[in-house]
Amino acid sequence: MGNTFGRAFRVTTFGESHGGAVGVVIDGCPPRLPLTEEDIQVELDRRRPGQSAITTPRQEEDTCRIVSGTFEGVTLGTPIAVIVNNKDARSTDYDDIKDTFRPSHADYTYEAKFGVRNWQGGGRSSARETIGRVAAGAVARKFLAQERGLEIVAYVRQVQSIMSVVDPQVVRREDVERNILRCPDGAAAAQMIALIERMRDDGDSVGGVVEAVARNVPPGLGEPVFDKLEADLARAMMSLPATRGFEVGSGFAGLVMTGSQHNDAFYYDEEQRVRTATNRSGGVQGGISNGENILIRVAFKPPSTVRKAQQTVGRDGTAITLEARGRHDPCVLPRAVPIVEAMMGLVLMDHFLRHRGQCGAR
Amino acid sequence: MGNTFGRAFRVTTFGESHGGAVGVVIDGCPPRLPLTEEDIQVELDRRRPGQSAITTPRQEEDTCRIVSGTFEGVTLGTPIAVIVNNKDARSTDYDDIKDTFRPSHADYTYEAKFGVRNWQGGGRSSARETIGRVAAGAVARKFLAQERGLEIVAYVRQVQSIMSVVDPQVVRREDVERNILRCPDGAAAAQMIALIERMRDDGDSVGGVVEAVARNVPPGLGEPVFDKLEADLARAMMSLPATRGFEVGSGFAGLVMTGSQHNDAFYYDEEQRVRTATNRSGGVQGGISNGENILIRVAFKPPSTVRKAQQTVGRDGTAITLEARGRHDPCVLPRAVPIVEAMMGLVLMDHFLRHRGQCGAR
Amino acid sequence: MGNTFGRAFRVTTFGESHGGAVGVVIDGCPPRLPLTEEDIQVELDRRRPGQSAITTPRQEEDTCRIVSGTFEGVTLGTPIAVIVNNKDARSTDYDDIKDTFRPSHADYTYEAKFGVRNWQGGGRSSARETIGRVAAGAVARKFLAQERGLEIVAYVRQVQSIMSVVDPQVVRREDVERNILRCPDGAAAAQMIALIERMRDDGDSVGGVVEAVARNVPPGLGEPVFDKLEADLARAMMSLPATRGFEVGSGFAGLVMTGSQHNDAFYYDEEQRVRTATNRSGGVQGGISNGENILIRVAFKPPSTVRKAQQTVGRDGTAITLEARGRHDPCVLPRAVPIVEAMMGLVLMDHFLRHRGQCGAR
Amino acid sequence: MGNTFGRAFRVTTFGESHGGAVGVVIDGCPPRLPLTEEDIQVELDRRRPGQSAITTPRQEEDTCRIVSGTFEGVTLGTPIAVIVNNKDARSTDYDDIKDTFRPSHADYTYEAKFGVRNWQGGGRSSARETIGRVAAGAVARKFLAQERGLEIVAYVRQVQSIMSVVDPQVVRREDVERNILRCPDGAAAAQMIALIERMRDDGDSVGGVVEAVARNVPPGLGEPVFDKLEADLARAMMSLPATRGFEVGSGFAGLVMTGSQHNDAFYYDEEQRVRTATNRSGGVQGGISNGENILIRVAFKPPSTVRKAQQTVGRDGTAITLEARGRHDPCVLPRAVPIVEAMMGLVLMDHFLRHRGQCGAR
Repeated sequence: MGNTFGRAFRVTTFGESHGGAVGVVIDGCPPRLPLTEEDIQVELDRRRPGQSAITTPRQEEDTCRIVSGTFEGVTLGTPIAVIVNNKDARSTDYDDIKDTFRPSHADYTYEAKFGVRNWQGGGRSSARETIGRVAAGAVARKFLAQERGLEIVAYVRQVQSIMSVVDPQVVRREDVERNILRCPDGAAAAQMIALIERMRDDGDSVGGVVEAVARNVPPGLGEPVFDKLEADLARAMMSLPATRGFEVGSGFAGLVMTGSQHNDAFYYDEEQRVRTATNRSGGVQGGISNGENILIRVAFKPPSTVRKAQQTVGRDGTAITLEARGRHDPCVLPRAVPIVEAMMGLVLMDHFLRHRGQCGAR
Repeated sequence: MGNTFGRAFRVTTFGESHGGAVGVVIDGCPPRLPLTEEDIQVELDRRRPGQSAITTPRQEEDTCRIVSGTFEGVTLGTPIAVIVNNKDARSTDYDDIKDTFRPSHADYTYEAKFGVRNWQGGGRSSARETIGRVAAGAVARKFLAQERGLEIVAYVRQVQSIMSVVDPQVVRREDVERNILRCPDGAAAAQMIALIERMRDDGDSVGGVVEAVARNVPPGLGEPVFDKLEADLARAMMSLPATRGFEVGSGFAGLVMTGSQHNDAFYYDEEQRVRTATNRSGGVQGGISNGENILIRVAFKPPSTVRKAQQTVGRDGTAITLEARGRHDPCVLPRAVPIVEAMMGLVLMDHFLRHRGQCGAR
Repeated sequence: MGNTFGRAFRVTTFGESHGGAVGVVIDGCPPRLPLTEEDIQVELDRRRPGQSAITTPRQEEDTCRIVSGTFEGVTLGTPIAVIVNNKDARSTDYDDIKDTFRPSHADYTYEAKFGVRNWQGGGRSSARETIGRVAAGAVARKFLAQERGLEIVAYVRQVQSIMSVVDPQVVRREDVERNILRCPDGAAAAQMIALIERMRDDGDSVGGVVEAVARNVPPGLGEPVFDKLEADLARAMMSLPATRGFEVGSGFAGLVMTGSQHNDAFYYDEEQRVRTATNRSGGVQGGISNGENILIRVAFKPPSTVRKAQQTVGRDGTAITLEARGRHDPCVLPRAVPIVEAMMGLVLMDHFLRHRGQCGAR
Repeated sequence: MGNTFGRAFRVTTFGESHGGAVGVVIDGCPPRLPLTEEDIQVELDRRRPGQSAITTPRQEEDTCRIVSGTFEGVTLGTPIAVIVNNKDARSTDYDDIKDTFRPSHADYTYEAKFGVRNWQGGGRSSARETIGRVAAGAVARKFLAQERGLEIVAYVRQVQSIMSVVDPQVVRREDVERNILRCPDGAAAAQMIALIERMRDDGDSVGGVVEAVARNVPPGLGEPVFDKLEADLARAMMSLPATRGFEVGSGFAGLVMTGSQHNDAFYYDEEQRVRTATNRSGGVQGGISNGENILIRVAFKPPSTVRKAQQTVGRDGTAITLEARGRHDPCVLPRAVPIVEAMMGLVLMDHFLRHRGQCGAR
């Protein structure tokens, strides 16, 4: 269990990195949404390995196929299944980790839980499982954009200790796509890239922070007390591989303020809409969107796969010194950007439909 | 919707701060667990207002009653309903906020979502709704303690910029309860209390961080890819009032490390169990517990209710200067401690039962 | 688990027959629906024992209290908790069945499942648990009536082998309430009542069929492939105590027809709506309502509690001859009528909200 | 929504009859179950069209592929995706029903719900969607057989008015497979087949009843009050195409008995297990299995596709006389047998895992 996300827009992913295929079934999508494989492929291409010098050189095509739920270019309201075939060759690359638990990977915990694991390329714990998430997110985002003009933009905010400066109110996808790191602050990006290249050459890895903003979010999304919007966003993000922290609005940094400093004063704008003068709430108050931009940050740890020698153990009770070979990402952040966007789309879509169900169109 | 938490140990809370009652229905509790109202009341007493000079002086009894699901002192396996009656007097304290949206409260968003709200004392958005969570958490924790010796301890780790030093491996509840702040580091606690008293006198408020540890957690809990253990913990914590951030293990601070520094080396201990030399993973790898202590941190913003004058608006489109009276908490952290423990208990309990269902006892 | 019904309009019931209280929490109710305790009480009064000479003479008040989710006479969109206190006296009536498994009751199976049971009055398996269903159904039906003019009428169709003739197109509640049996066919009702009185005097019991119709159901409700409307209706009805069978439309009797005889021809009515000339489909085609009346039938077995001597066993492995005393229903049908209506209301309400969520208002 | 079945063993199906593929994702399967495509294919072959002279002559291979969730011949505990590709040729067979609502099919209701439909071969409402159910059922049944020796056998009990005589206590699959009708009573089967052939030649169709028995079911499965075992069985069966009625145990026929006649007397057998002398309860009491055989019956209406001329309407508001061509089943019962078995397997499996979760192994 645990492979379904959402209550109204329900996304079920499947697939190991070296099984037959990975994919997703989307249940609950509104009917009559124009949808083709191109809508999905463009996001998968941003996610896939081998895009640039700072991602893993492993080449994967990741060509998707919609096998149900659409007809003559529109959604039917029935389950949309999207499938990406794996390359079928059985890999021998992983033979040396068959009986070894790689440090800070999921090898040991899958074995502890299930008593068995697909040890080829991480199996189900591989980041390859996010293909289904990205595909589903593309559908959600297309609906929200068309229905409400809602837009989601994520970008690299921090790599190790290097911070960028980005204005979430105005940043556009084209700003993000301007460099291979997906950090719109060009100066910071250059430093970050240099650091990552150093890490790559050194056989090591670094982590960082992805920030994401959603604009034109209607007020009223989110369902207290447990399915608050920020709670579901937190769950969505912390379900991604390698995440270690989540913030909304002012986050941990807001703790230095007092309440009177931190509060967002209300005012009416020229269209007589209720607005806030500041946005320390990050667009969510009491678990419900207030119409301001939703702003979140997600911490990704440095990837666990490094070439440096490490101490670990085998399944058989022996101590082992592991020197990973393989080809992996020195920094997951550039590829994490479209994944964070996808998950944000899934959460907002789910809550949009749920809100419409309970409260009707308003 | 949104008032049910968990899949196997399902907790549904109800109640507004000034309606007839607040409470919880727990579905899926294992049968034959010894359970009386005292087991629950002790945790409710830690949560209730009026405990000390640094919490709101508002006095509430919060006496619970179990009205179903137990018989002759043990659970039946049927739904356990726990009810705490509200004082029935209709409050006039809140008349002045009937038509006003308090900054950074949920007044506006509830109105935007539902088109109606119970404006007395925050209604459903009041922290009073956490009574049901604490009651259910007490049941979960009792089961886990009895079945597995699992123990959960939370404490105040930070107030504004003041940090405490606490060893999560050994800290006990009695250390936490030693002072009114629930911070086991006595020296830091004294500074924190002084700051809070200054805030209280000044009509302002401060936030901070609660840290929680779970010990004796069996390996194997957590269900990738969406219901990873840290994802459900994040959701649980971010569904609490006033939370703005969540971390597991090394969290945001871990980002300064490289992968080779950050990885937790495996070894076999004297009982031939797989262990990690460090615990930057916070007890969770690949979304599944690895048997090490689970360690999380939750950021609570400074409470929105302050006595200082603030700019805001009324429902009728007017600008308003609000000067709150009432009696509120200058800092929610001491009372948040038992709530964080409760939510951690709910997550671990749910995953314990889910794991037992899919994989059987091992 | 298993005490929650519905996905969008989620109803969780709790309570044993002799615990502190029975009740229900309704999550997901649309906001701003006028709702008072009187709306619920009128249905509870139709359900309660002691109404007439052919129901159990046991007197129960079953006075309900709404303790959350409403404010100033309307729903808030937050959970609505409705509670009915049990009489608190601990019964000695049941001491003789403490260690005995009554034939065709749930005594043995609860014990087999949970290893413990509340043996007083059936505990959770008592028909008293339907109070929460009826309360929630009253809320659902009020919304559907107000929003769509949807009306639900159930009545006794058959007692043992005595059949009544009722036209589901026109039957009204006042027709149903005209006699104590809730069978609108007066002549059949007289025979049925005579039979039941004979059974009552003889210490035996009889079963029968309740038929229910929903009119003004909008086309489009129901979610293939698993949550088809008739599937959820079947589940709803078969979850009621003492049910043994379910039919929709032509049901089992339709099997004598060939396909060409059984099909419902389509036509356009004067308002250019698609209609069917006959209604063997019972208002549901392919799992989705077609706008015709929804027509179902539910078989209730003869109640298991009889005064006649029966062979059974004790918990301790002994054979026992049981002669029940107590006061019970010789026929549950009159009291089942409001319960069937309630469950039908819950299913239609849930699907109304779900459909509105996915497909929007049309 | 509505395409997922089960809570612990969660089955999500997808696919239209003429889209790219149909299939299923199974989440929550216990790990380490031996499983290959052959285990599934054998059941699909019993379900597929073109098996015999009394099923549709349409030929479909329905070759399945497991693309995730297994490794080296055993289940991983991760989602198992099973895919059956559709023939890709776009059919022109259906052009004449593109704008016509076939009587008692789902053409109109899908259009009413979604505003769009895949009109080729019924789209999602095609019986082809049951392929996913049968595949998942094969997995469930294999686990239950291996873990508990539980066996499920279904067979044709009735065609139109012709009844068979079968003893559910002893009937084996080989008895069922002895003839093309899957009715173990050879004499009745001959009559039934003759009737179906007459209908086929006449361009008409007939319905009937499938009965199913589950043996070696452990006591304790089923979760009152809503997820009673018979309620979930009813939902499972009534979610199948063309079903109109459901019974458990004595069903509608039991209504002629009085309570004292109908009750199942308890006794202890030679192994000191609690047993019932009769089984009018059909193996379920109070919603929980009692260890006796579970016995259900499902009514399937005569198929809606007939060659005889019928009155209907077009999408454009016109009246139309429809004369179906195509190749369809004069009677669905032989092919319904493996589908009923599959759904019964899914329900029992789900409740087995749920019970193990809440109550542990007993």
